[in-house]
Parts: sequence; C-alpha cells; structure tokens
Amino acid sequence: MVGYAPGEQPQEGQFVKLNTNENPYPPSPRVAEAIQDAVERGLQLYPDALASEFRERAGDVLGVDPDWIMAGNGSDDILTIVTRALVGQGQQLRMPTPSYILYHTLAQIQGSEVDEVAFTPQWGLSPEFATPSGDPRLALLPNPNSPTGTVVSLPAILETAESLPCPLLVDEAYADFAEFHSVDLVAKSERIMVARTLSKSYGLAGLRFGYLIAQPQLIHEFRKVKDSYNCDALSVAAATAAIGDQAWLRDNVAKVRATRGRLSDSLKKLGFAVIPSQANFVWCRHAEQNSQQLYEELKSQRILVRYMKYPNWQDGLRISVGDDAQIDALLAALKSMV
Amino acid sequence: MVGYAPGEQPQEGQFVKLNTNENPYPPSPRVAEAIQDAVERGLQLYPDALASEFRERAGDVLGVDPDWIMAGNGSDDILTIVTRALVGQGQQLRMPTPSYILYHTLAQIQGSEVDEVAFTPQWGLSPEFATPSGDPRLALLPNPNSPTGTVVSLPAILETAESLPCPLLVDEAYADFAEFHSVDLVAKSERIMVARTLSKSYGLAGLRFGYLIAQPQLIHEFRKVKDSYNCDALSVAAATAAIGDQAWLRDNVAKVRATRGRLSDSLKKLGFAVIPSQANFVWCRHAEQNSQQLYEELKSQRILVRYMKYPNWQDGLRISVGDDAQIDALLAALKSMV
Repeated sequence: MVGYAPGEQPQEGQFVKLNTNENPYPPSPRVAEAIQDAVERGLQLYPDALASEFRERAGDVLGVDPDWIMAGNGSDDILTIVTRALVGQGQQLRMPTPSYILYHTLAQIQGSEVDEVAFTPQWGLSPEFATPSGDPRLALLPNPNSPTGTVVSLPAILETAESLPCPLLVDEAYADFAEFHSVDLVAKSERIMVARTLSKSYGLAGLRFGYLIAQPQLIHEFRKVKDSYNCDALSVAAATAAIGDQAWLRDNVAKVRATRGRLSDSLKKLGFAVIPSQANFVWCRHAEQNSQQLYEELKSQRILVRYMKYPNWQDGLRISVGDDAQIDALLAALKSMV
Repeated sequence: MVGYAPGEQPQEGQFVKLNTNENPYPPSPRVAEAIQDAVERGLQLYPDALASEFRERAGDVLGVDPDWIMAGNGSDDILTIVTRALVGQGQQLRMPTPSYILYHTLAQIQGSEVDEVAFTPQWGLSPEFATPSGDPRLALLPNPNSPTGTVVSLPAILETAESLPCPLLVDEAYADFAEFHSVDLVAKSERIMVARTLSKSYGLAGLRFGYLIAQPQLIHEFRKVKDSYNCDALSVAAATAAIGDQAWLRDNVAKVRATRGRLSDSLKKLGFAVIPSQANFVWCRHAEQNSQQLYEELKSQRILVRYMKYPNWQDGLRISVGDDAQIDALLAALKSMV
C-alpha cells in the first residue's frame, strides 16, 4: 500500500501556508493557561482515560450528555477507532467521491474495500448512496466536504441514514465554518454519528484533539477499541479550555468567513471557477491555466496551496482561508500569473 | 469483546498510588520549559508528522540513526501500529504467558488469534516459543516482563529472533530500570524491533509518548499505518527535552532501584514470595493471605496496588515502586494485615 500523504508541513523558513486548512488565528488565551496549570499539576500520572473534564465541558456547549462523547487524539484517531470497530477485513467502507483522501488509507490499512459513490452535480448525495447493492459496514460523509467545501442538507443526511444498512459517520471537521451542523441528528437516529476536531476552528492543529458524538451504546463499544490513554493530560486540559471559550470561536469563525467571501470573489475575477464553500478553504480551477503549474509557481514564491487531482473528476487547487495579509499575498501572486 | 481494563486512575482524593507503575519522581525541569516554548511558538499549525526533533535527540542518546526511530502516542500506539501492519484477521500473534494483558486486547481488536507459550520456570523463553507449529506474524516479548519484572537475556532474544518465522517486538517499557537492554540487537537482526515509552522511567505517563526502534525498511512501512500526526507538538517538545536529560533519568532510576530492593526485602520479611524484579514494580504473593483480600484492605486504606489473576498460573499483587514515603505507608499497612 502507498499510505496517506498529508499536506506539506515545512518545519523551517517562512511560507504563506494555505495548504492544510489550519486556522490563521491563535487559539483562545485560556488554552496556554490551562496547559500551564496541567504542567504544574504534574505529568507523572496517567491521564483520565475518558477525558471526562473535556466531555463535561463539551456536553454543556453542545447540549449533549457527556456519555454521548468520546475523545480522540485528533479526529483521525476517531475515524480510525470507528473504522476498526465496524469494518472488518474484506468488508465495505462506503463514501462519496470526490472526498477526503484519508478515507482510502483507512480502508487500505483495515484491508477493507472502498465503496465509492459520486456526489450529484449539485454536491448532494445520490439516491444510490443510500441504497447500496453490497453490504457496507460504515458510511463516511464529510460535511462540509473536502476538497469542495460543499454541504449536504440535514434532511438529506437523516433520510440517507435511515435508508442505509449501516451507521453513517458525519465528519464535521469544518462544520464550525458552515451554516448548520448535524449534532442534533444523533439523538434522532442511532445510525448517525458525528466526528469533530479542534484542529481547524479552534486553531489547535498542533495539539491533536478530536471527538465523536454518538449514542452511548455505541460509545461503549468504541471505548474498547481505542488506546486506553489516547489523549494526554495537556491536550485534554487545552481542549477543555478551548471549547469553553465560544466567544473566541465565534470571532475567529466570523473573520474566516469574511475572508473566505473575499477570496472567492477575487478568484472569480481572476478567471477561476470557484465552488461556493462553507469550510475554511475553497476549491478552484482556472479556466485556462494548468493547476499544477500554478501550484508550482506559487510554491516557488513560498506560497503553499494544495494541488489535488481526483480520478474521474478533475484536478485543481484547494486554498485554505488564511488571514487577510496571507490572502492578499496569494492574490497578488496569482494576478501576476493568470 | 471485553476490552482492556487499565489500572484504576482515581481523579480525586489522596491515594498512595502504586498500581500502574508510574514514576514517583517528576520529569526533568527541562520538560516544563520545552512545553512553555512550544506553546509560545503557537499551536495553530500541524506538528511535524515524523517528530524529527525527537528522533534526532533520541538517536544521539541511543546511538541509533534517526531513520531507525518512529515516534508514537505512547508505546500503546506503537504496539497498535506494528500489530495492524503485520497481523491480519485470523492470523496469529505470539506472546509468552503470563504477560502484559493489553496484548490480548490488541489481538482481539485486530480479529487475530492469541498464540501463547508459557515462560520456563526460570522466566526464560522455552525452545517452543522460537519454533511455532503455526504461522505467527508477530511475536511480542515484554522485557522486563509484566507482571513479573523478570528478563530474558540478550543471547536468548537474538537466538529466538533468528529461529522465529516472524519479527520479534521487544517491549522495553521498563528497560531503563533493568541491567541491560536490546537496542543494539536491532542492527544485528532485521527481525528484532524495540518499543520504548517515556511514561515510566521519564515520569511522563500524563504525556503519552513512546517510540519504536527498527530497521529503516520496516519503519518505512509502519509510517504508512500510523495516523499522519500521531504525536502533538507539545509532547514532541517535552519528550525531546526529557530524553535529552540523561543525568535526571539516571538519578531517578537509581532511586527507584534502591527503593525496589528495600521493598522486595521487606515484603519477604512479611511472608511474601517475591520474584526478583528488574522493573519499577514487584510481583508478590503471601504464603497464607488471600491476595484479593489484601488488595481490598489496602484500597480501603487508600493505598492502591494492582490485584491480578492469571489463568493457568496464579493470582497476586503487582506493586509499583513508589517513593520511600509511599513504600513506608504500604509496608506499615501490610504489617498490620499479615
């Protein structure tokens, strides 16, 4: 197998980094305080295996019982746990296409079969997605989707989940940037689970913290599969502080959305086709210019975006919504190229 | 499946906690500084997926090329990655018995078959261990072993690895407390891999950081299986600082070994059979008293040890080597019971 190739993470030198959907704004100042406090409490003892402190705070914020929440070492850990628990060797993992590339790697590691169904031209789920001819054990739906930033509506998610023969995991890595989310659907259907991460909207990609919302009988089973102490004491403390500061989240999200609008409009003016995005990135493709070449030229100017090429679809650029200065630099560079 | 039940981790109240082999001494003061620096550098960006900073420092300390090292979110993550990479559904995972209970859980999650061989009466590997009649894909050897604290010699490890039809992972979670370790064997045989953790000897159980030493062609394959960003920026910084302070490690290890000797001698005087340990815990069993009852009585006095019961062997108490005050409290309590 080939393995998943994450976006470039240059560890030195100054880049305008718009390739892996990090938040351009720092996390809440409460995060640094919480880490300091945790260090002072000491690191010798194992952390609370269930991250109860986080689950209680998150439960308050989301209006969900803490027993409906499981914490993970990033939402990648959550995706891995759920896949390992539900999809055996040779069994099917259902997903829409084009979508998050990591899902293929998860299936490969598990020895499972990728069972893909194309999105409709309007980026909805086709009726075929909900009525498989095979026997999938889990369906994954990133919402908003990557790389498109598009969303499937809540009624469509509920309808799909009720039709599918297996659970549906809605991967809401980018939901804080969207107009709605599907947390409330979890209580309506045992079939619906929601994965979240603090990497994007909370500005904590360096921390690795994600969580799952699912009915407690499912959480109970998933806990058996996770590493006993999958989240460390510092990340639990930091994540608890971060999710407790909703005002900070709202401010950052508002800034990102505003810049996203400006980025999309400017790209269109430069001759790009831009898919309307509800995430903190946009997918675009120039009418005349080669996407890979644009990526290379930008990189030579120390501006990193993500070039992606999907079989049976297209190639293009996925550009993270940075801060205004970063986006100005990008647009200036593109202007000289197209 | 039942899932792995880790030792109790009371999150409140004062316990003399001697049940999960944590270090009674704090980590190097450099750890807190490194965490502070990492927080100041910012947490918005993804960490280095390969924890290069740690691998370089660890390589210096261990005399190993950094490309022979893979970092993990605790050595549990390392064990999970190696098992997922090598042992498929229905295939065999070989291990000695009695040994680390988590190995059974790893096999269960993977849908693999546990293939156990008893230690010899002198806690060595029997010739049978090295010559399976079946087809194991991976053999695990905790050295020192848990719960016994006993060790298999380096020549025996090398001989076993050369005879086995599959790789041998030596789980050295407790090796810093022992008289020798097997890191140098990795260069001698592609079949030998070594797993380490910073939870025990470095006093960083709260941090979740472990690593694997293996030949680079194997590391290359394992990297495809691990989560892209399995270690966060804070734990990489902290682990790098911790492994860089070998003087601190040596001092703590010397203290733990001295207390271990005193604990073992005192337990014997109280009528316990004690297996000579090279780890930071001892396994003991009283000649007349019921082990589970002793565990319960100690717990009622807010002293936590680990009661364990092994099918086809015995039950007993696994007692972590705490600091001198903790061990004094334990011995005083036991004296009133036996």
